[in-house]
Amino acid sequence: MVTIADIADKLGISKGTVSKALSDAPDISETLRKTILETAVEMGYTKLRRKRNVSKKVCVLIYNMEYTSPGHFGYDIIMGFRQMAEPAGLTVDVIPITKSLQKTTPYDVFMLENDYIGSLVMGISLSEPWIADFKTSRTPAVLFDNYVMGNPSVASVAVDNDEGMELAVNHLKSLGHKKIGYLSGALGSHVFLVRHRAFFAALKANGLPTDPQLSGSSYYISECIQKHLPRLLERGATAIICSHDQLANAAMVQCQELGKKIPEDLSIIGFDDLPMSPYTAPPLTTIRQDRPQLGKCGYYALDSLLNGVPIGTILLHPQLILRSSCGERK
Amino acid sequence: MVTIADIADKLGISKGTVSKALSDAPDISETLRKTILETAVEMGYTKLRRKRNVSKKVCVLIYNMEYTSPGHFGYDIIMGFRQMAEPAGLTVDVIPITKSLQKTTPYDVFMLENDYIGSLVMGISLSEPWIADFKTSRTPAVLFDNYVMGNPSVASVAVDNDEGMELAVNHLKSLGHKKIGYLSGALGSHVFLVRHRAFFAALKANGLPTDPQLSGSSYYISECIQKHLPRLLERGATAIICSHDQLANAAMVQCQELGKKIPEDLSIIGFDDLPMSPYTAPPLTTIRQDRPQLGKCGYYALDSLLNGVPIGTILLHPQLILRSSCGERK
Repeated sequence: MVTIADIADKLGISKGTVSKALSDAPDISETLRKTILETAVEMGYTKLRRKRNVSKKVCVLIYNMEYTSPGHFGYDIIMGFRQMAEPAGLTVDVIPITKSLQKTTPYDVFMLENDYIGSLVMGISLSEPWIADFKTSRTPAVLFDNYVMGNPSVASVAVDNDEGMELAVNHLKSLGHKKIGYLSGALGSHVFLVRHRAFFAALKANGLPTDPQLSGSSYYISECIQKHLPRLLERGATAIICSHDQLANAAMVQCQELGKKIPEDLSIIGFDDLPMSPYTAPPLTTIRQDRPQLGKCGYYALDSLLNGVPIGTILLHPQLILRSSCGERK
Repeated sequence: MVTIADIADKLGISKGTVSKALSDAPDISETLRKTILETAVEMGYTKLRRKRNVSKKVCVLIYNMEYTSPGHFGYDIIMGFRQMAEPAGLTVDVIPITKSLQKTTPYDVFMLENDYIGSLVMGISLSEPWIADFKTSRTPAVLFDNYVMGNPSVASVAVDNDEGMELAVNHLKSLGHKKIGYLSGALGSHVFLVRHRAFFAALKANGLPTDPQLSGSSYYISECIQKHLPRLLERGATAIICSHDQLANAAMVQCQELGKKIPEDLSIIGFDDLPMSPYTAPPLTTIRQDRPQLGKCGYYALDSLLNGVPIGTILLHPQLILRSSCGERK
């Protein structure tokens, strides 16, 4: 069990200071207080003093997304969410949901039965039964990477994909690239659809030609690489942006198989900045969506809904992470 | 000077209860506490107990927007912002800014000199000098109805114009309208540009034809009405959406001058829901952007930036307000 001494050790400060932060004492800086509370949540300290919201419970509903270990996409988002929610006095349960649960129990009923006042919903695709519920549900829900129109009880949280694609295209343009290709996961996914549109909008905003033949999308990475990559290379793409890092990694591997050097012959940019991305060959230049920060955005959105402020969308600023997979056009 | 007794009187509760809320006592419901704090701010009570953020100051920077009296567009937004910021312990100054201030003093310098840790910026158009500053400034700024790309210290807050236009078009479609026109203020304004795009996107999403001749934009309302309205009527528009309520009101007046009955011959929808809109002839159906809620969104965005969470965009859910300016297509 984690103690105050453990937290003090980890941060290299006194137990008294940790204790002050946990008991919300006034004579400690706000920055230090935040760091201590976030570390306490991260280490699993369970005795956070809860002044308000006593006994109020929220849940993270998760479907089809890895979240159990550090480094998993969902893990970091949930950690960011908890780092805001728990010091604010909320209890956070993480619940993997199934299709059969969605079919048998409406969302509002599930929340009421289990005494949850709101949820962060992750990994649920547009075809899942609860997406239909979210059009009219009354219990606050924040959808990560998904969007439902016109329900004041539902908010969406995501990275700003438009801004991300513009950062990527701006960067390639500054390196002299004009023929920029795009490889994508299947457009049945909300996030891939949004990024696909954002890519073409960024080309237009940068005054670059848009050629539909310079893009391709498939459900499976291997299919995308086999079916579309050769066409992009034939049509003279000198740079390729990929909808997500795993696809970018596969594209780099395949291009190198075909005798192309990265970045000398071809520049590649990914999207997400997964933990693996600094360790691809070469290390991948990518657009980061900061996962703990996304979790915190999820908390801001849920807090607003719980306070009667019907925020519909929160978008996080992305960052361009420069590594070694992009070079000047020869 | 406003006292605890005044607040208690206004809400019809005891002074003890008001006192509890103001001193952040735990034995009072969160909802009641919020109502009391918001009423205290609204009435001008100045002794809110400030536990944290003591002496921290933020400002509302306002340009070219009325805000001094209740009912003014800016007034309600500022009130919503203060209703969140002041109970959280921040001092809020409202500062009308001039073009010469912007030219002589960079934004960051102004904020530093005056000890402000962040700002909500309202009414500033894309051509103002500080908009260039906001691309690289470091002091947190939240722009209302404006957008600057790629600066993690700057966030944007607005109503979700896409959702608003979709609510308007959905409603007209449900009444049987197919030829829907659009009148707009000048597209040099960020918000009018966004709404213009959103209108055409909503037509497409609803499977309705898009005819550029069925839309028109001008800087002055009178010019817009004289130049574009006759063309829309000639081309057979049975409904017109306007980019803002004043323009919708002018369109209704002019149509009635021309012998058209509203809503029998023509349906009109506005945008904003200004205080005048229930009192136009006929009362105007419109898309509401809730001004106090927008101010609260502004606080959420600023609070996130001050806490190191780089939220880029917050969009508020709009509402369709049904009054008497729309009818079924004959």
